[in-house]
Amino acid sequence: MAPLEDGPREKCGVFGIWGLPGAAAVTYRGLTALQHRGQESAGITVLRDGRLSTLKGMGLLSHVFSSWNPEELLGESAIGHVRYSTTGRSEPQNAQPLVFRLPAGPLALAHNGNIVNAARLRRRLEDQGAIFQTGTDTEIVAHLMARSKAPSARVALEEALAEVQGAYALLLLTPHALLAARDPHGIRPLQLGVLEGRPVLASESCAFDAVGAQTVRDVAPGEVLEIGAGGVTSGGARGAREAFCLFEYIYFARPDSVVDGRSVYAVRKELGRRLAKAAPVEADVVVGAPEASIPAALGYAEASGLPFELGLIKNRYLGRTFIQPSQALREEAVRLKLNPVRDVVAGRRVVLVDDSIVRGTTAMQLVRMLREAGATEVHLRVTAPPYRHPCFYGIDTSVAEELVARGGVEEVLRAVGADSLAYLPLEEVAEATGHAGRLCDACFTGRYPIPVAGGTGKFELEAQP
Amino acid sequence: MAPLEDGPREKCGVFGIWGLPGAAAVTYRGLTALQHRGQESAGITVLRDGRLSTLKGMGLLSHVFSSWNPEELLGESAIGHVRYSTTGRSEPQNAQPLVFRLPAGPLALAHNGNIVNAARLRRRLEDQGAIFQTGTDTEIVAHLMARSKAPSARVALEEALAEVQGAYALLLLTPHALLAARDPHGIRPLQLGVLEGRPVLASESCAFDAVGAQTVRDVAPGEVLEIGAGGVTSGGARGAREAFCLFEYIYFARPDSVVDGRSVYAVRKELGRRLAKAAPVEADVVVGAPEASIPAALGYAEASGLPFELGLIKNRYLGRTFIQPSQALREEAVRLKLNPVRDVVAGRRVVLVDDSIVRGTTAMQLVRMLREAGATEVHLRVTAPPYRHPCFYGIDTSVAEELVARGGVEEVLRAVGADSLAYLPLEEVAEATGHAGRLCDACFTGRYPIPVAGGTGKFELEAQP
Amino acid sequence: MAPLEDGPREKCGVFGIWGLPGAAAVTYRGLTALQHRGQESAGITVLRDGRLSTLKGMGLLSHVFSSWNPEELLGESAIGHVRYSTTGRSEPQNAQPLVFRLPAGPLALAHNGNIVNAARLRRRLEDQGAIFQTGTDTEIVAHLMARSKAPSARVALEEALAEVQGAYALLLLTPHALLAARDPHGIRPLQLGVLEGRPVLASESCAFDAVGAQTVRDVAPGEVLEIGAGGVTSGGARGAREAFCLFEYIYFARPDSVVDGRSVYAVRKELGRRLAKAAPVEADVVVGAPEASIPAALGYAEASGLPFELGLIKNRYLGRTFIQPSQALREEAVRLKLNPVRDVVAGRRVVLVDDSIVRGTTAMQLVRMLREAGATEVHLRVTAPPYRHPCFYGIDTSVAEELVARGGVEEVLRAVGADSLAYLPLEEVAEATGHAGRLCDACFTGRYPIPVAGGTGKFELEAQP
Amino acid sequence: MAPLEDGPREKCGVFGIWGLPGAAAVTYRGLTALQHRGQESAGITVLRDGRLSTLKGMGLLSHVFSSWNPEELLGESAIGHVRYSTTGRSEPQNAQPLVFRLPAGPLALAHNGNIVNAARLRRRLEDQGAIFQTGTDTEIVAHLMARSKAPSARVALEEALAEVQGAYALLLLTPHALLAARDPHGIRPLQLGVLEGRPVLASESCAFDAVGAQTVRDVAPGEVLEIGAGGVTSGGARGAREAFCLFEYIYFARPDSVVDGRSVYAVRKELGRRLAKAAPVEADVVVGAPEASIPAALGYAEASGLPFELGLIKNRYLGRTFIQPSQALREEAVRLKLNPVRDVVAGRRVVLVDDSIVRGTTAMQLVRMLREAGATEVHLRVTAPPYRHPCFYGIDTSVAEELVARGGVEEVLRAVGADSLAYLPLEEVAEATGHAGRLCDACFTGRYPIPVAGGTGKFELEAQP
Repeated sequence: MAPLEDGPREKCGVFGIWGLPGAAAVTYRGLTALQHRGQESAGITVLRDGRLSTLKGMGLLSHVFSSWNPEELLGESAIGHVRYSTTGRSEPQNAQPLVFRLPAGPLALAHNGNIVNAARLRRRLEDQGAIFQTGTDTEIVAHLMARSKAPSARVALEEALAEVQGAYALLLLTPHALLAARDPHGIRPLQLGVLEGRPVLASESCAFDAVGAQTVRDVAPGEVLEIGAGGVTSGGARGAREAFCLFEYIYFARPDSVVDGRSVYAVRKELGRRLAKAAPVEADVVVGAPEASIPAALGYAEASGLPFELGLIKNRYLGRTFIQPSQALREEAVRLKLNPVRDVVAGRRVVLVDDSIVRGTTAMQLVRMLREAGATEVHLRVTAPPYRHPCFYGIDTSVAEELVARGGVEEVLRAVGADSLAYLPLEEVAEATGHAGRLCDACFTGRYPIPVAGGTGKFELEAQP
Repeated sequence: MAPLEDGPREKCGVFGIWGLPGAAAVTYRGLTALQHRGQESAGITVLRDGRLSTLKGMGLLSHVFSSWNPEELLGESAIGHVRYSTTGRSEPQNAQPLVFRLPAGPLALAHNGNIVNAARLRRRLEDQGAIFQTGTDTEIVAHLMARSKAPSARVALEEALAEVQGAYALLLLTPHALLAARDPHGIRPLQLGVLEGRPVLASESCAFDAVGAQTVRDVAPGEVLEIGAGGVTSGGARGAREAFCLFEYIYFARPDSVVDGRSVYAVRKELGRRLAKAAPVEADVVVGAPEASIPAALGYAEASGLPFELGLIKNRYLGRTFIQPSQALREEAVRLKLNPVRDVVAGRRVVLVDDSIVRGTTAMQLVRMLREAGATEVHLRVTAPPYRHPCFYGIDTSVAEELVARGGVEEVLRAVGADSLAYLPLEEVAEATGHAGRLCDACFTGRYPIPVAGGTGKFELEAQP
Repeated sequence: MAPLEDGPREKCGVFGIWGLPGAAAVTYRGLTALQHRGQESAGITVLRDGRLSTLKGMGLLSHVFSSWNPEELLGESAIGHVRYSTTGRSEPQNAQPLVFRLPAGPLALAHNGNIVNAARLRRRLEDQGAIFQTGTDTEIVAHLMARSKAPSARVALEEALAEVQGAYALLLLTPHALLAARDPHGIRPLQLGVLEGRPVLASESCAFDAVGAQTVRDVAPGEVLEIGAGGVTSGGARGAREAFCLFEYIYFARPDSVVDGRSVYAVRKELGRRLAKAAPVEADVVVGAPEASIPAALGYAEASGLPFELGLIKNRYLGRTFIQPSQALREEAVRLKLNPVRDVVAGRRVVLVDDSIVRGTTAMQLVRMLREAGATEVHLRVTAPPYRHPCFYGIDTSVAEELVARGGVEEVLRAVGADSLAYLPLEEVAEATGHAGRLCDACFTGRYPIPVAGGTGKFELEAQP
Repeated sequence: MAPLEDGPREKCGVFGIWGLPGAAAVTYRGLTALQHRGQESAGITVLRDGRLSTLKGMGLLSHVFSSWNPEELLGESAIGHVRYSTTGRSEPQNAQPLVFRLPAGPLALAHNGNIVNAARLRRRLEDQGAIFQTGTDTEIVAHLMARSKAPSARVALEEALAEVQGAYALLLLTPHALLAARDPHGIRPLQLGVLEGRPVLASESCAFDAVGAQTVRDVAPGEVLEIGAGGVTSGGARGAREAFCLFEYIYFARPDSVVDGRSVYAVRKELGRRLAKAAPVEADVVVGAPEASIPAALGYAEASGLPFELGLIKNRYLGRTFIQPSQALREEAVRLKLNPVRDVVAGRRVVLVDDSIVRGTTAMQLVRMLREAGATEVHLRVTAPPYRHPCFYGIDTSVAEELVARGGVEEVLRAVGADSLAYLPLEEVAEATGHAGRLCDACFTGRYPIPVAGGTGKFELEAQP
């Protein structure tokens, strides 16, 4: 349900390719498939004749590249980025890839994730005279590398990552290599593929499908890949406990992606089936909140024997520019974005399957909308436990106090106005993913795999880029 | 399936409101819900203190109004338009509403449809010295009105429409009135609604839902409405045979709309049910071509007892700018736009439900895509008869020779590479709409309700704006 | 002195060429030399393969063509236009060349001047059903031609001009010919030249110098030229009394131009010499108001024996965007535009030579500025008589009441604060031009060569485009 | 003569003000008067409520601020900059003021001049891990300050300047102070003024005239001014030999400016007078190359008794966008920019006074142009000695080999095609300025006041921003 104001938000998507003519065009297509991971800014850096050229800007890919000039972006290697700011302010200079002129040569960076000790590292670097160009935590990696005396960009990167704590999927492009790094717990996803014999990298496998590439494997937690004239070399510091982000399965990733070995569509359908068993209800029709919850609603319908219908129609042309911050406008935005099919819900008892409840405002509006369209009962079924703790690893959530789920079921029920409400327990969720024991579930449990400054009770929200 | 290159394309959507402060903002929201009817240009004309102000441009509404300046568009009455050119060339000066300075005062027009005797009327007017500003047939109405000596804009409009032959839903705004007109056969849809006691008009009811208005009734075929200080007055020349456009139900209209009294969603589901009975097949799963064919696929699944799955995922961020005219790029565009869910189709016999086959290229690519994802069989089921005759009433289709469906079933089957192919017979389609005998089915039968110059065999394609 | 707010303003400059590859580039260069005649909008229409392409926009030529695309403007014939609106409002749709789609083919028009019976003609045309696209009087010519049944554009133009009263230099481009027309009195200038054997046309000879062309002759008053495959053919209705605009010599034209046979520089210097004899004064230095009055100041110095100095320096980078309409800002604008050289004027008695006084505000500021820089006396000498009557032939002046010169010398002297003030008598001005008896001096005498509706006392300002 | 391609080019102009509401508007007006010092980019940084806001971009001030939004630039202190790149490439990121986020707070810099040890300092800073954002030498000052542990920005600036060698006029703005610094030799000009009791700073006094400020004094060579809550404090390291740039007097500065105590107009007229005595010639008329050489031509006419005429008219609307790099286009550009007045030169022997000859191409074209207009003889008189050595202190000149003046008089005479040629000897030039012994004449003598790496014979052109 989350593309509205109510859901948690993933920050970014990355894509990279080494050694294929038309690299920028391939990267453009790959990023198109990752656009759901960020719509605030987009950019591509391409390598040609030892020079890096970057085209980036605010808005959707199709907007940034609307006057696409192939002359400017010729080259055989490229990295690209789509971004969703987790802070309120969105600033043009934060658009990625970031490019730096180091004495060793130019360096481009594209980053998905969050560095939790960013503020501390930045303060230390500034005390040493560093001048920061952006407000991103990504830039810290460049400054750490600029100070390195290491003989290669890859060693400099490994040295830098030794100081960095957080969740990240990083792509770096230099005149000599494409580097890729995934954080030690594997919180943020990153995969290696192959296209016409050349290596490609992407946040999700749907980007490989879009360019006609095949998935090779997930980049391992803690792994650093160096891709260059000598092929693909693996390094880095592995061995930490895996902690794959649960929300990639529940909501973030595209259903046609396979993430860390599991089909996202299959996981979501299984969540719906388990939810039907865990929280059955007498009703006439099952409706999913578009678009992320449709597979779960199909699973719920299948396991419950109730018919599934497309009861809410999404307007796929809704521009982002019109959405404005006030509450009144946000409610209006929901009505522009979603419309119930009267014929489907009028006079019926509706099971509404959704993936998460954060502030609760969207759920409240959907319930009201279904009732106005004639639903006699609305039963809200959520494919995740209550979302109670903020994420520090690359997802935007409000400060803890705002999270409606911190209240009990009764309180939330009153807030959203449904006839009943049920969550899927965490163990069920974990088992549905097939990764039980290897997941980051901090947003549900408060158990953070990477320590956050000041503890989880009174946290310090560092360097929010 | 049609937003790709392969489907027939509807030209426009219109919205209007009279007498409510914030009319432009309401119109913007209404047009947002009609954006599926045209993405090439958008515009709004607003009336304030006897003056008309227009903001329009190329691209999506959200793009045209990205630097929305409320100061410029204050007013209590407005009309708006979204446009999809049916000609290859898209020219900025053709963006609507068109505005003319007549001696009697300014006049704004927004038009959905096609005037079939446009070339002849234009030639006659030019012989009389008229200078045309645009290539649209809409401008003919303004020139006819400019020559009228009628005492009011409404009478001038009725005089003008007496000379015009074609399919249209027209909105006109003057300093004194909002006029609405629907063609004598009712080919193009147009509805009257009410918002806070004030009249609103729209091509489809989903636009009323988006602004919180209630539907009052469809504008009758041949009716002319005058809305002004004296309320709503009905006139015009009624009595011709109704001929509602079948394609509005099959593909164009949004499923959450009610058009001429029928729920589009319900009609599509019924089409699917009838298709399952008319053309059953032994298979494992039913998949609909997103997004228009999902309801029909649900109907097919329901009637056949086979499970429905969301087997094709659509990328809703695909920009239009990247799509380019060559065949290679069009194929690539399909891969960017749609991606199969391997987990759903691998190792299975798939029923693919689609709404129409025009050139056949998209169907061919979907079939190939499903096979590559592991489908063992693909059975194509189409919710309409073969599409064999060009539309002259506001839908863009290729010249007759290009229509693949003009070939027999075997020929089409070979072209698209499916294991089997079946169409839904016209009588079944007509009955599913509940309007049998009151439909325009010219594209299937060649029986044109309005005579086209030169007959249907060797037609003259006049003034295609 | 006039580019500030205080002077009369000429409306436009035109340039045309027939039959030379690179016609658009030649026209661009020619218009560059005519930019002093209009800085509000600029445009070029070029003919290629029977089609007219137009590139035009608001602002200086260099701005409009900043992203010059030679591909779009290839062709061997072209006309161009620079425009200075005489009305307060400047509207993009009024930028010229205006292009019309007539049944006989496309037509482009570029016009310098003013049609005095424009309002009446427009009203008549609108009564016949004509719809006007712009607020320009130029469009009337197109509508009159559109109604003609004449066999050629040239005959249609002559028919149209028979109905038109006013001052004009007109260029028209069709797929078959370049037409040029000058009003019967020759009020507005227009010249014929030759470049590499092909005919060129321009408002002033400095445009021929800029492109390397040679002047052939002035287009005769009332003459219509048709330039096409058959060479240059002369027609039109000649014989009216010549009435060349005096202000072209006094202020409008560039000093390096020759207009109707007289060097503008030589005329201005002679004006200064005659002024020195007619209105001598004891002083130390002669200063001219930049830039138009520098030659006159040199003439004054020569005849008086006083030294000439460049006492006022003009900032040639002053953008137009910053100038805003309030009085305070206009005064500030003068200070940004002109600065006295203290070293030249401090402790000296200054003769300030200017070309005209309209509202008097600029003169007042120059006098104050010179005093602040230390001038002990400032004697204002004007190379024209008092400017007392509005111009209806293409020059923008305020309504008669605003013209400070309507007051007597004493009143003006008080207003501008000079120590003395003298004008050059009309006979002297006329003799200096060498065209005595063949001039339009209506702005000084109120004797209008073309009758203006309602007479000159209570005039009706028609259709001021 | 220099705004064409042939002259040396000054890099920049700066303006600053502290403590007056509307500071950005004042700075805009001040920069307008300095626009002749740089037309490539422009920008203003304004201080409000402890925050710095910057608006800058490529092109003229009027272009950069064409959509001036006063809301964005409110504040009581500001610095501004206009820039002319001395390198071939002009890059948007080099537009000034440059703004840096230092740990101590934000810092804005505006710089006119050139740091001769820039490459060495940059290499050292990069070895320490510094990442540079721009290609300007100005950024070095910020990096040196970022490394300082000094208690105030002023002390940090003085520490930084102790390492810097070169010619500079620097303005810095922090939330607490406006800092100004002039290089130890005073090569680049910088002046202090007062406007409504508040301190202002500018490269030339004409900027003070434009805003209505009064000149207080020149900033002394080596002086650092700190302007803040405590008023104006003077510091810095003075005592080096003064070496004012001769070219400011000969060509760069505006004639209405007073620079280091001398009226530029008076100096130029004196140069003309001395030239007439040093190199007399029998002739009929004296013409100056617009615009810089007009005062010198007046001086030549005065001392020689020959009449002065405005024989060359400059097109002040010539856009920069049209000028393109090829030789043919450059010649064409001269013809667009300047046009002789035939009436003045035809049949006459002309003395053409110019300020300098660098590549000689412009002089050659002027001579040819005058001959084509009928001049019987053309005698070139130059108000400076041959220009033989490159400038490293902020002026753009070609590498030494290209300087035509390195050849002897005969060689140059042949190149430009004049009938005679004479230069004004250096001693005469120096005496005309009134600063003999306190000038930088390196471009004429090769005696560089600041040592340049590698000596003057085989120089290293460092960090040319």
